[in-house]
Amino acid sequence: MENSNIQTHVEYVCRAAKEASRAYGSTSTAKKNALLCSMADQLTADCEDILAANADDLSAAAENGVPRTMLDRLKLDEKRLAGICAALREVASLPDPIGSGEQITRPNGLVIRHVRAPMGCVAMIYEARPNVTVDAAALCLKTGNAVVLRGGKEAIRTSVALVESMKQALDASGFSPDLIGLITSTDRAGATALMNMRGLVDVLIPRGGKGLIRSVVENARVPVIETGAGNCHLYVDAAADLTKAVKVAVNAKCSRPSVCNAIETLLVHKSVAHQFLPMMAEAMADYKVEFRGDETACAILPTATPATEEDWDTEYNDFILSIRVVDSIDEAITHVTRYSTGHSEAIITEDMTAARRFQSEIDAAAVYVNASTRFTDGGEFGFGAEIGISTQKLHARGPMGLLALTTDKYLVEGDGQVR
Amino acid sequence: MENSNIQTHVEYVCRAAKEASRAYGSTSTAKKNALLCSMADQLTADCEDILAANADDLSAAAENGVPRTMLDRLKLDEKRLAGICAALREVASLPDPIGSGEQITRPNGLVIRHVRAPMGCVAMIYEARPNVTVDAAALCLKTGNAVVLRGGKEAIRTSVALVESMKQALDASGFSPDLIGLITSTDRAGATALMNMRGLVDVLIPRGGKGLIRSVVENARVPVIETGAGNCHLYVDAAADLTKAVKVAVNAKCSRPSVCNAIETLLVHKSVAHQFLPMMAEAMADYKVEFRGDETACAILPTATPATEEDWDTEYNDFILSIRVVDSIDEAITHVTRYSTGHSEAIITEDMTAARRFQSEIDAAAVYVNASTRFTDGGEFGFGAEIGISTQKLHARGPMGLLALTTDKYLVEGDGQVR
Repeated sequence: MENSNIQTHVEYVCRAAKEASRAYGSTSTAKKNALLCSMADQLTADCEDILAANADDLSAAAENGVPRTMLDRLKLDEKRLAGICAALREVASLPDPIGSGEQITRPNGLVIRHVRAPMGCVAMIYEARPNVTVDAAALCLKTGNAVVLRGGKEAIRTSVALVESMKQALDASGFSPDLIGLITSTDRAGATALMNMRGLVDVLIPRGGKGLIRSVVENARVPVIETGAGNCHLYVDAAADLTKAVKVAVNAKCSRPSVCNAIETLLVHKSVAHQFLPMMAEAMADYKVEFRGDETACAILPTATPATEEDWDTEYNDFILSIRVVDSIDEAITHVTRYSTGHSEAIITEDMTAARRFQSEIDAAAVYVNASTRFTDGGEFGFGAEIGISTQKLHARGPMGLLALTTDKYLVEGDGQVR
Repeated sequence: MENSNIQTHVEYVCRAAKEASRAYGSTSTAKKNALLCSMADQLTADCEDILAANADDLSAAAENGVPRTMLDRLKLDEKRLAGICAALREVASLPDPIGSGEQITRPNGLVIRHVRAPMGCVAMIYEARPNVTVDAAALCLKTGNAVVLRGGKEAIRTSVALVESMKQALDASGFSPDLIGLITSTDRAGATALMNMRGLVDVLIPRGGKGLIRSVVENARVPVIETGAGNCHLYVDAAADLTKAVKVAVNAKCSRPSVCNAIETLLVHKSVAHQFLPMMAEAMADYKVEFRGDETACAILPTATPATEEDWDTEYNDFILSIRVVDSIDEAITHVTRYSTGHSEAIITEDMTAARRFQSEIDAAAVYVNASTRFTDGGEFGFGAEIGISTQKLHARGPMGLLALTTDKYLVEGDGQVR
């Protein structure tokens, strides 16, 4: 498509979604839940077409030399589609935040209800992950919102098939199919146009790699919720139980290094560094972790190479760990404060005064004492569903469940009161 | 100051405030309340110096031809300063949101506390209103935040005197005086530098006229909460009690037209327009309200002049009212949806189905049935204090009390749990 056509297409999709959201916002919880279940039924019925579209995406992607890990994320089969439908039914079973709230009566008789209300139109920009297409639609529809989706170009045939199937369920349930919009232009211009739909897009949530998120945060003129980037630290205090510290360090670095809640830097108090670092290195041996240390760490661990200033600032997403030996908890807090992206930070200590101070002074969505940073996740926190992990302070912070997709509204009723 | 010096000054003030905020964030409620009361005592003790500084501001402003209404807002006297101190003590008496929250224990034994936490460093850009200097400091300190203030240039001597007095109270109470920062450069460059302090300013709240707010929203690279603009509507439905409608219209337009919760446009259903508009015009006669109407409205009200497209989009802040006669509630909702700034909207009707529909479909912070839009205000809503009225949907919407100055944080405690 030419850029002017892309602009027209994106505006058309967003306007239709925004207009459809108006009447949809007051739909009852029972009707919204029934809709989500009928979407799951429809996706199951359309399994053959969806898998065929996915097979076309996969072969095109393989031809274009897309890396194997990305192909694996893109791939659907009957089992994965069943999992996606099960997640949809799980969203249907969650409590509906919309409409809940407090009511007060003022001395003049005015009744003020402070309620949770839908945002209106939520947009998502994400990568080639078919499950996000359905998850995002489910979470937005559950909270009375319309959704506009712009997924990765490698998954475009799959996205079209999934969205067509969900639109059919909307139509059959008596709702406007416009409630789920899909940007079918996979050019960068499609994403750019979406970032500029002021007045039509009430909030835009980017979900994916660092480059995608940075581009959205820097270029969007619609409200954005920043997700994802995690330069996470583990601080092993002077008063740490070193057995716990080794177990947590191995888990936080090695269980899944590609995700945002994995650690990138280990800070260790000088009084325990000589004992702890060799224990940790041995426990990480199977994972062939590369160590990059400051001078003291390199002196203790012969396999470590010197860390540069850039290392402290890098989210490796790989089996690499930077290590710094600190003189005090103050130095640890200063380091974390300087380099943290505000995602997840942890201290290992048996000294509860040190633990409290770390939790209070470290400015991050989740601050752990004696546990792995890998727990920062909607499912692990018991939210049942997650639309991303916010690293900003406004509106939502940490794993975002249904509540993050709502705003507030004051409904005021009187009998002719004036001020 | 030269621009590079201004940049250095602003960065210095922000960095000092941000650093001071770290330890201050965990201060107990009792100590914070005692601090606010000692600030009130100190301001009272420094009354003479503060009023002398204010007198200098006033004479300079008068010389520079500052309009009388602005001079009145700038002026302090003993009574006004006492009012400011009383407001400070009132903030001390409000409940402290920090630290409150829910605690859950997960099946694996992890204890997750979801608490309200301070933002860190809150910045305010506002106009020449001395009370805002103290109010903003009080609300921020109550919620465990540092504050950086950039007030209007006409009030600079007063701001310096107020801030010096409050810093003295901080020092005497054992807190860092850096917790209240004042940008003493009143050039535009000072405000611009403040809008760009990423990493040091956690949230920036502009408070003042439309031009100020638009400039901040468009230029800031730090997180912003948009406040203020109010293009508010009153819709008089076919089923309206016209006596109530007249009373509310007069109050919403005429009681204080310069404020954001006053109405700018009246929409009236065609079936009652002939009866209602002359009643309203008569009731507004004392206020000499200028009417700008659509064709039907002009035919009914001989004094009305034709409204242009621009009128529907204008926040007059004056004794001017644009009037449109609509065929249906749908047309009213469509008009409001198109021109509303999302502040406050009202319907007058005895038909509860129409009322519910209006409240559900109108997308604004406050939606009224049979009451004046003038009630959108922290005090009128019973919040006790207000830092502004948010017209955005993320984070805070409507009158913002203490909660809007906090973020969330997950404090997770384990015994070596890994995932």
